[in-house]
Amino acid sequence: MAASSSLFSSSTHTEMFAPKISKCPKNFLCCHGKISYVKPNYFKAIYGPKSRFLSTNMSSKWKQTGQRDSLHCRVLDGIERAPSFSVGQKFQLDDIIEAQQFDRDILSAIFEVAQDMENIEKGSPGSQLLKGCLMATLFYEPSTRTRLSFESAMRRLGGDVLTTENAREFSSAAKGETLEDTIRTVEGYSDIIVVRHFESGAARRAAATADIPIINAGDGPGQHPTQALLDVYTIEKEIGKIDGIKVGLVGDLANGRTVRSLAYLLAKFKDVKIYFVSPDVVKMKDDIKDYLTSKGVEWEESANLVEVASECDVVYQTRIQKERFGERIDLYEKARGKYIVNQDILKVMPRHAVIMHPLPRLDEITVDVDADPRAAYFRQAKYGLYIRMALLKLLLVGW
Amino acid sequence: MAASSSLFSSSTHTEMFAPKISKCPKNFLCCHGKISYVKPNYFKAIYGPKSRFLSTNMSSKWKQTGQRDSLHCRVLDGIERAPSFSVGQKFQLDDIIEAQQFDRDILSAIFEVAQDMENIEKGSPGSQLLKGCLMATLFYEPSTRTRLSFESAMRRLGGDVLTTENAREFSSAAKGETLEDTIRTVEGYSDIIVVRHFESGAARRAAATADIPIINAGDGPGQHPTQALLDVYTIEKEIGKIDGIKVGLVGDLANGRTVRSLAYLLAKFKDVKIYFVSPDVVKMKDDIKDYLTSKGVEWEESANLVEVASECDVVYQTRIQKERFGERIDLYEKARGKYIVNQDILKVMPRHAVIMHPLPRLDEITVDVDADPRAAYFRQAKYGLYIRMALLKLLLVGW
Amino acid sequence: MAASSSLFSSSTHTEMFAPKISKCPKNFLCCHGKISYVKPNYFKAIYGPKSRFLSTNMSSKWKQTGQRDSLHCRVLDGIERAPSFSVGQKFQLDDIIEAQQFDRDILSAIFEVAQDMENIEKGSPGSQLLKGCLMATLFYEPSTRTRLSFESAMRRLGGDVLTTENAREFSSAAKGETLEDTIRTVEGYSDIIVVRHFESGAARRAAATADIPIINAGDGPGQHPTQALLDVYTIEKEIGKIDGIKVGLVGDLANGRTVRSLAYLLAKFKDVKIYFVSPDVVKMKDDIKDYLTSKGVEWEESANLVEVASECDVVYQTRIQKERFGERIDLYEKARGKYIVNQDILKVMPRHAVIMHPLPRLDEITVDVDADPRAAYFRQAKYGLYIRMALLKLLLVGW
Repeated sequence: MAASSSLFSSSTHTEMFAPKISKCPKNFLCCHGKISYVKPNYFKAIYGPKSRFLSTNMSSKWKQTGQRDSLHCRVLDGIERAPSFSVGQKFQLDDIIEAQQFDRDILSAIFEVAQDMENIEKGSPGSQLLKGCLMATLFYEPSTRTRLSFESAMRRLGGDVLTTENAREFSSAAKGETLEDTIRTVEGYSDIIVVRHFESGAARRAAATADIPIINAGDGPGQHPTQALLDVYTIEKEIGKIDGIKVGLVGDLANGRTVRSLAYLLAKFKDVKIYFVSPDVVKMKDDIKDYLTSKGVEWEESANLVEVASECDVVYQTRIQKERFGERIDLYEKARGKYIVNQDILKVMPRHAVIMHPLPRLDEITVDVDADPRAAYFRQAKYGLYIRMALLKLLLVGW
Repeated sequence: MAASSSLFSSSTHTEMFAPKISKCPKNFLCCHGKISYVKPNYFKAIYGPKSRFLSTNMSSKWKQTGQRDSLHCRVLDGIERAPSFSVGQKFQLDDIIEAQQFDRDILSAIFEVAQDMENIEKGSPGSQLLKGCLMATLFYEPSTRTRLSFESAMRRLGGDVLTTENAREFSSAAKGETLEDTIRTVEGYSDIIVVRHFESGAARRAAATADIPIINAGDGPGQHPTQALLDVYTIEKEIGKIDGIKVGLVGDLANGRTVRSLAYLLAKFKDVKIYFVSPDVVKMKDDIKDYLTSKGVEWEESANLVEVASECDVVYQTRIQKERFGERIDLYEKARGKYIVNQDILKVMPRHAVIMHPLPRLDEITVDVDADPRAAYFRQAKYGLYIRMALLKLLLVGW
Repeated sequence: MAASSSLFSSSTHTEMFAPKISKCPKNFLCCHGKISYVKPNYFKAIYGPKSRFLSTNMSSKWKQTGQRDSLHCRVLDGIERAPSFSVGQKFQLDDIIEAQQFDRDILSAIFEVAQDMENIEKGSPGSQLLKGCLMATLFYEPSTRTRLSFESAMRRLGGDVLTTENAREFSSAAKGETLEDTIRTVEGYSDIIVVRHFESGAARRAAATADIPIINAGDGPGQHPTQALLDVYTIEKEIGKIDGIKVGLVGDLANGRTVRSLAYLLAKFKDVKIYFVSPDVVKMKDDIKDYLTSKGVEWEESANLVEVASECDVVYQTRIQKERFGERIDLYEKARGKYIVNQDILKVMPRHAVIMHPLPRLDEITVDVDADPRAAYFRQAKYGLYIRMALLKLLLVGW
């Protein structure tokens, strides 16, 4: 597909792009231009002010503009030899805020970039793609797993990282600085900001303030769009397609933002069928059910995990979130033990199917399942790395 | 001015310095020599033991020694091509401990380096100036803003960072290690240490112990010299001069070390006039007033912010520090609301004037002021980055 | 010795190894291959599954296999010129878990690599040895000193770091993830994991799970093998030999895992004599005494530090660990004051002898001792850097 940018490892590319380099303006790219207010979001200068979410009809747009192969490249002179690759068209999104930003085309295109990321070899030009770029992880609540994934992604592309897991302390309670003021300061120090916040909508507020790209790494009960993307990417990688698949969402469907976002994204594909399997206290809420219905997505609720597992391509298990039960430990314990993925489930699952889980996992998947090749959850975490590499690449240097 | 070192981006420099490289001893520079006790402060070997604060008459000293253009350069062989630039004379200061270290000449010289820093392009030799250098941020109390600014500065110059925001835990209470012992350990791991401490005088103690450069990033009620430098730099950048300006210091003048240090530095310039505008409970203390008088600096106290704002080139607003009021919330609330920079103030301010603030800001500057071009406080934060880049450069590789 | 790999700074090596490069498979090495599950522990593919602790008879094994000089090297093409050095035979250990893994031969071989590390010059190929490698520091309890030492080691070799000092929060209590699951996730993000844990045996569990190398940076009352190694290295560097030396172990011998591990390692050398000098409440336990006796190591207990110090090559002082005394502050205070290394001790110590201490130090060594050249404890901390550099190098790229 036109959206792909398999720029790496092929020697023909080097030749192909070599002539362009001399024609291109120096320091064109955000991360290799001057350290200034304007450059990190240089696209704005070219494409006008942040035009958010204009993701539709990407491929045709490329045809119209014809810019893809001619416009952008990078010249790095000086001390280190730079990767010789073309940088294509601006990424359609200025920021990553919510799963709804992504339509089917852009998802496919991002997945192709993620696939490129898997193929980057260390020491290759691709591994230096974001050299000189600085990512700030501004975490208002700790989430070591997510933070390490983003930081690994940045470093695997040659970029650098400013870390804070205690961002609360420099903006809130005690001193009372607003998120907006903090963003304005931190954007002076970095080229892209990954925000984790305890309040829904915080990422959107950050994006509205910042001149540099913002990635939402989870904002309270709101969104966690990179998780949603990696989930869909995992399905594509493991099953080979998304159209026509059957997915069982299991566990805490009421509180898990993961399954909610996933349901939302699955609705963009054809002939998907979704099963909801959850204890009564944590059932999927009506808004998602109504949404699926309105989009013509078939769904049903079931209390029989064995039956569902025998039919599905994907069993997506989730942790019952104890913290949501407050004092009602009895309810929690009851809900927690109800649907366990174990050898009995493996027995009925089709050979090509997979088990997914956003992690951390308690005992809702028994440890003896890990050895089965259909246990995809640790691979899923790894796919998250590639998705985040792809997003960082796209936001900072375009297609 | 002679103190400048505009080494970057001009192609003539490359030629100019090229011949020197072959003559220069290999691994001359701290950060590119062996990892050893001695090298990080190689200046000591050349200039004798740390001769602190010998900043006066810098320019003439250069003439006397005649070393500037001949002595230092770097040879980097091996895998990466190194920036080809000359490194000039040793920086006069071994450490950055307090604002009083800086006289007018050295301030100007540092500002020229800071200007060079603003012009460094990513991917250029300048952006790799501190490659191989390791800065430890040893923060005994958290200050994410200051830490990120230093870490960004180090990374923008190609250097690396060791971070700790919980330095208390490995030196104090529980285990009882002295600051001096900690410094002796950490200097074995790094090339320069940025210390933030809760005790006044801690930075000076650290500097007395260390063989590598120490930068004070705030020591309790003591000093925060890099903030003072960036404040003066901001004035020079925004107003174009410091001699002859009128500055209104507003807000918490009793507790703010920022305004105290700024007053101190302003006294080094000619015909400066300072207005103090503050609630009675947090008035500027007599020591600073007496100091200004002794230096012939005109100052006056005023209760009329509108009047002061209409006369000043700089309105330097500060936050009333709630934490200093203890139980007296009533006093705090009263003080806090008294002098607000808002549209009324903007109306009377000259067009060329600017509003500054060390941040974080609460409501002592209303948010609607941000859009006015005279609102300089976020630019001020950014200037801090350049000042810190300049200081890191000067301490680690000289002029 | 055959195990040495003094690859650095000698120009003859470049020539010697140059021809090999073209023959070697690309991306052979973990840190420069693809980012994938398999590569980081590529040795497994070659040598079969992790064969732990097969350290004995290393040299002869090399002769048998004859692989040392022919098998491994690295080819780095692409944007940056890579260090031209051969990478030799796989390191015998997959992980660093406990002091018992090391026999005398492997200790000597590691020390030679550590010596090479001391000689690495910044900007030299050696300083980029681990470029592209990512080390995760997964600390379930904070230990800033140890963490900074590892992170400095990694950066001094050109590698990058993912840091967490709050690993507890993403695996335990609240959410209940097992160490094993955490390891499986983090190994997807990094090439090597340094684990600090509060539970004895945790490092071994991590190593049993991970496909990438694990280094134990202390697991509760268990082991801290890199400390043990650096202690022995310090003795070799400072005294010039280990056979035939006399060592006084002083202070908290019951609780200090450091002195226990050191005793264990010293038993591997010839004609070593060990003195135990400690308050009655924290005497060396019988297991170590029995072990020493079984190995034919001479030892005795003494209550006379002056006498012991006058005979020893090494006085290894340790801190009385207050936290082990619970409520019995009186016992602690009594124990703490009993054996102090001060000027009186210095007076009787031989000129060639040294004082060591694992740090942090309270007042069990008086500050006025620091100036004496025999005070080796800060040098000891620095030797730890080289030992950790050596281990990272060996685990990631082999001999």
